[in-house]
Amino acid sequence: MKAVVLEKQGEIVIKDMPIVGEMTPDSVRIRVKAVGICGSDVHYYTHGRIGHYVVEQPMILGHEAAGEIVEAGANVKDLKPGDRVCMEPGIPNAKSRAAKLGIYNLDPEVRFWATPPIHGCLIEEVIHPAEYTYKLPDSMSFGEGAMVEPLSIGLQAAKKARIVPGDVAVVIGAGTIGIMCAVSALAGGCSRVFITDTKKEKLAIAGSYDGITPINVATEDAMKIVMDATGGWGADVVMEASGAEAVYPRFSDYACPGGKAVLVGIPIDPVPFDIAAIQAKELDLASVFRYANIYPRAINLIGSGKIDVKRLISKAYPLSDSIAAFQHAARLEPDVVKIMIEL
Amino acid sequence: MKAVVLEKQGEIVIKDMPIVGEMTPDSVRIRVKAVGICGSDVHYYTHGRIGHYVVEQPMILGHEAAGEIVEAGANVKDLKPGDRVCMEPGIPNAKSRAAKLGIYNLDPEVRFWATPPIHGCLIEEVIHPAEYTYKLPDSMSFGEGAMVEPLSIGLQAAKKARIVPGDVAVVIGAGTIGIMCAVSALAGGCSRVFITDTKKEKLAIAGSYDGITPINVATEDAMKIVMDATGGWGADVVMEASGAEAVYPRFSDYACPGGKAVLVGIPIDPVPFDIAAIQAKELDLASVFRYANIYPRAINLIGSGKIDVKRLISKAYPLSDSIAAFQHAARLEPDVVKIMIEL
Amino acid sequence: MKAVVLEKQGEIVIKDMPIVGEMTPDSVRIRVKAVGICGSDVHYYTHGRIGHYVVEQPMILGHEAAGEIVEAGANVKDLKPGDRVCMEPGIPNAKSRAAKLGIYNLDPEVRFWATPPIHGCLIEEVIHPAEYTYKLPDSMSFGEGAMVEPLSIGLQAAKKARIVPGDVAVVIGAGTIGIMCAVSALAGGCSRVFITDTKKEKLAIAGSYDGITPINVATEDAMKIVMDATGGWGADVVMEASGAEAVYPRFSDYACPGGKAVLVGIPIDPVPFDIAAIQAKELDLASVFRYANIYPRAINLIGSGKIDVKRLISKAYPLSDSIAAFQHAARLEPDVVKIMIEL
Amino acid sequence: MKAVVLEKQGEIVIKDMPIVGEMTPDSVRIRVKAVGICGSDVHYYTHGRIGHYVVEQPMILGHEAAGEIVEAGANVKDLKPGDRVCMEPGIPNAKSRAAKLGIYNLDPEVRFWATPPIHGCLIEEVIHPAEYTYKLPDSMSFGEGAMVEPLSIGLQAAKKARIVPGDVAVVIGAGTIGIMCAVSALAGGCSRVFITDTKKEKLAIAGSYDGITPINVATEDAMKIVMDATGGWGADVVMEASGAEAVYPRFSDYACPGGKAVLVGIPIDPVPFDIAAIQAKELDLASVFRYANIYPRAINLIGSGKIDVKRLISKAYPLSDSIAAFQHAARLEPDVVKIMIEL
Repeated sequence: MKAVVLEKQGEIVIKDMPIVGEMTPDSVRIRVKAVGICGSDVHYYTHGRIGHYVVEQPMILGHEAAGEIVEAGANVKDLKPGDRVCMEPGIPNAKSRAAKLGIYNLDPEVRFWATPPIHGCLIEEVIHPAEYTYKLPDSMSFGEGAMVEPLSIGLQAAKKARIVPGDVAVVIGAGTIGIMCAVSALAGGCSRVFITDTKKEKLAIAGSYDGITPINVATEDAMKIVMDATGGWGADVVMEASGAEAVYPRFSDYACPGGKAVLVGIPIDPVPFDIAAIQAKELDLASVFRYANIYPRAINLIGSGKIDVKRLISKAYPLSDSIAAFQHAARLEPDVVKIMIEL
Repeated sequence: MKAVVLEKQGEIVIKDMPIVGEMTPDSVRIRVKAVGICGSDVHYYTHGRIGHYVVEQPMILGHEAAGEIVEAGANVKDLKPGDRVCMEPGIPNAKSRAAKLGIYNLDPEVRFWATPPIHGCLIEEVIHPAEYTYKLPDSMSFGEGAMVEPLSIGLQAAKKARIVPGDVAVVIGAGTIGIMCAVSALAGGCSRVFITDTKKEKLAIAGSYDGITPINVATEDAMKIVMDATGGWGADVVMEASGAEAVYPRFSDYACPGGKAVLVGIPIDPVPFDIAAIQAKELDLASVFRYANIYPRAINLIGSGKIDVKRLISKAYPLSDSIAAFQHAARLEPDVVKIMIEL
Repeated sequence: MKAVVLEKQGEIVIKDMPIVGEMTPDSVRIRVKAVGICGSDVHYYTHGRIGHYVVEQPMILGHEAAGEIVEAGANVKDLKPGDRVCMEPGIPNAKSRAAKLGIYNLDPEVRFWATPPIHGCLIEEVIHPAEYTYKLPDSMSFGEGAMVEPLSIGLQAAKKARIVPGDVAVVIGAGTIGIMCAVSALAGGCSRVFITDTKKEKLAIAGSYDGITPINVATEDAMKIVMDATGGWGADVVMEASGAEAVYPRFSDYACPGGKAVLVGIPIDPVPFDIAAIQAKELDLASVFRYANIYPRAINLIGSGKIDVKRLISKAYPLSDSIAAFQHAARLEPDVVKIMIEL
Repeated sequence: MKAVVLEKQGEIVIKDMPIVGEMTPDSVRIRVKAVGICGSDVHYYTHGRIGHYVVEQPMILGHEAAGEIVEAGANVKDLKPGDRVCMEPGIPNAKSRAAKLGIYNLDPEVRFWATPPIHGCLIEEVIHPAEYTYKLPDSMSFGEGAMVEPLSIGLQAAKKARIVPGDVAVVIGAGTIGIMCAVSALAGGCSRVFITDTKKEKLAIAGSYDGITPINVATEDAMKIVMDATGGWGADVVMEASGAEAVYPRFSDYACPGGKAVLVGIPIDPVPFDIAAIQAKELDLASVFRYANIYPRAINLIGSGKIDVKRLISKAYPLSDSIAAFQHAARLEPDVVKIMIEL
């Protein structure tokens, strides 16, 4: 069946590949219908590696996916052929200590789509464990189903922020993940979310949501805006979603005494941290690594209409145009949030 | 100055009363502009008591209030004459152990408006501690300012439920407090809220909010509806806001394994509790007594437009018609949520 | 191999039984060395049922066990023949929603030893999933290994109480589980634990631990003692471990404002609950159903010497005297905490 | 009355000073009996400043104090002349937003003893708010009462670590605060605490507590020891109490997946932080700024015998030898934990 394969750094081909894996009584076979292109897919394409994950052999790309069940194993009770679903891309060892604790995202043995050497889901059909395959409500499209993955990172951040209703949040960085954090914070109980960036196009998209106030730090004094809006107290929650080294020494200044910060952005090298400034406000800092037990929440929030992700799908390409789709994504245009491939 | 005074059970008069208390450097004097009538005001009017709180001498009624600053003490920095504000009705001893812990609502010495023998705020002017007086944004009317009080109970329940984004909630009882719980749960991160009652008028009001699904338990199978909507798992959060004895033995059935319940309704007598059923799901139960540190959150959520309370103000009366207002409230009409008195 | 089998209500026999289950690559085979007799074992023996769990066919008894590995499946990395271990008696479906959340104790499909119709572990050898089999440190005996199970209930209660260092706790009921709660609360951060009962022998055992103060409610005013010890504030944590109906209407009186209560005892019928009293202190109530992810903690605490369970093993019997052991346990002597069977 | 006054950097004198402040109906007057010398006292003595706190006029030193009530204001109910007490050195504005939230340590207006320009308590008598004055049990000496202050920092760290019973902790740094963290973690529910340092004398003192395992990182492989002790999983809690820049890039390596770290040490400059390493384990980081609502807990834990601080009082000097006492403290001898001055 047709698959989008990263042959090596810089070279994507569409070619026939066998289905990955084998059916078990606990798995389902899914006709893939939509796959979003993630920054990590683009990075493997353009750089051939992320940190110590190196593309050393051809790898099917993609991990943000939705589709339709075509076969269900004998033990599978809740899914049947014809069901519309989305799939969680990381599969832990269910017997691991992390999985038993409910933090299966932290299992070192997790197999995650399109993380070398594991194949991804940009292929016509995939076999997947039923317990990591989630039914979509009729109100959700396959494209929205594929958006569950990036939204889940924002929701993991919102969950870890332990938002109290009426909190004010600041999100640093209006990239795809920053926007996901902002809409998650808003849906998750914040009364108001400020989001900062230097790209006006990204800020315009984020600011299109009621309740999200964009701040262009190239031209505006973000600290003053946040402090004025909170009577000088500061934001209850700060989400760092830029990964930019320059942000770290002072990101905690946005926070109120006793506030919470969430580290979402991933800087490559160690960054300077002002411990004394963090202590002066006795901040709690959480960090995020993908997500666990979040997919049902994301589906609930999109399905009920509380979070709109449709406006974040900038353009859709058919599978046959996947190379153009990746080239488009690789241009990193400031008004593009998500490129979707439809199969 | 004019005040609405409960002379004794069943007898309200509008008469001149002196202002209550004296200005200090830390207090403000406020021209009261709107006061909501609470069920407790009505109950003192119709029954002359609530539990061991007995009306033994004439008492000014009212504790849900907003107004305008007319004088600010010398130490008051954040408020000045002309500021539009709402007032938190319970004042603790700031030196108490409870207050030091931040749970000032639980200080046994709290002085709470219109709780015998403490006078309430249905009078043209009140003197109040500045730190329990909160500025309203321009976008909020005095009537909305007065609604901060009942909303705060719902938000206290939502805070104590430790909602995780995407939770599903069930609220039992669609009275004023039940509706406040439902809108708070929704604003506080729930993807969907079910609310149950037997009165179709109340359910219609609750159901007018996107995301709140009314269930008439007189005609519908609420348990089946909740279980179908959650794939048989149950609701993450159950808020009991009816206080009806018959509800307690089985209210936990709505909850999912590991779920949370909040006890908001106040039954007069002990009620039957099925401990084993609660344990089988290992539920956590929280309880609510008024609120602490919630007013700024309620103002944030109303002010940002995330919670609409205007539709819950059923009718407004001028101060001179306060007796008619109380008589209206005492009729407990099913389509009345809040009667407001405007001064 | 020899097993202790409950043929039917009131009739235990020691007879040859085949090993239960079959080895898989992920399981271990264990030579059982010590099994504690639990109140539930005794109850099945004397009553033939607990609630809707009915002994309808011969069932091997016992679920509190330790032993020695004799065979390890091919996938098992952390255990090898000769390792001394204890075994968690409840095995969930690892693919269930509850298991994915880390609350595997709440999976409705849990298979729990000696809960009809599932056989228990009072047999010379058992086959068990490796991930629910835990290595004992050299410092722990098999008897102490078998005590991990009942201690885990106390530790689950202590975990759910979210003890803050220096808390004062009250445990109601000095039966085996009450004592486990008390030692867990103490080891878990409490500065002092009061335990109440009417049986002086049980209180004497509980009171033999430094930091645990027994109160005989038949002769002493427990409320006064607790209030005097806390300056009138009340206990931070109340653990209800009696299941006695008469306790419930007023158990919350022991608690301080903002305190926590844990429901551990299991009354058969609904009990009267004073909601208003609980709300007046805005208590949080947790409930306990067995335990999850607690075995490693219990082993740490026994193994490091922080919790001594040896003094709670009242008497040990050889397997051949198991019937006498059960008869002894069934006498419910007030100075007996745990009867152990050694194989 | 006699006071120990830092005239300027490097110059301490014992001289007569008037009592500081005036009695109010809510305050008490206390005959000071014991004052511990803190590192900050020594630092003001040797450097004349800490950060932007500069000694610009003579200042009475000392903030770790216990004494005896000699006068109680008219409103004071719980304290009377003759009561033995210890005093919390930081007094917030009770009307501040932070104080209302229960995080009064974070009130920017806090007045803290011996933090310029506020006088300390090394004087024969002090006037203090009754609500920050705590009664000592008969079992505690004045010296132990003075130790409540440094212990409270360790307990604040333990509280913020949200220890679950049976956790394993690693404390980095065996200075006074590191030892306080270690004993607090142990008393607060940990089964075992590792503490690292390069000074064998400090490690010997820490290691004298049952349950605390010292690791000399100059000669031992701390990471291997911790990993071996936890089956390769890592510690549940890591407390950074050294403030040493070199520690930060890798301190999170001690932690288990989903673990917690507490930032207690205060490095002067920004330090390098490996965000990606923290995220890979999705650690939660808490930070500590003094303490709030901890004194009663510290008193409970010392008073009940659960925490022994007596062994940490290295030497006591009479008031008349205070200069020698400070000179001793300033030598930073590795086997000195606390120098006490007795009045």
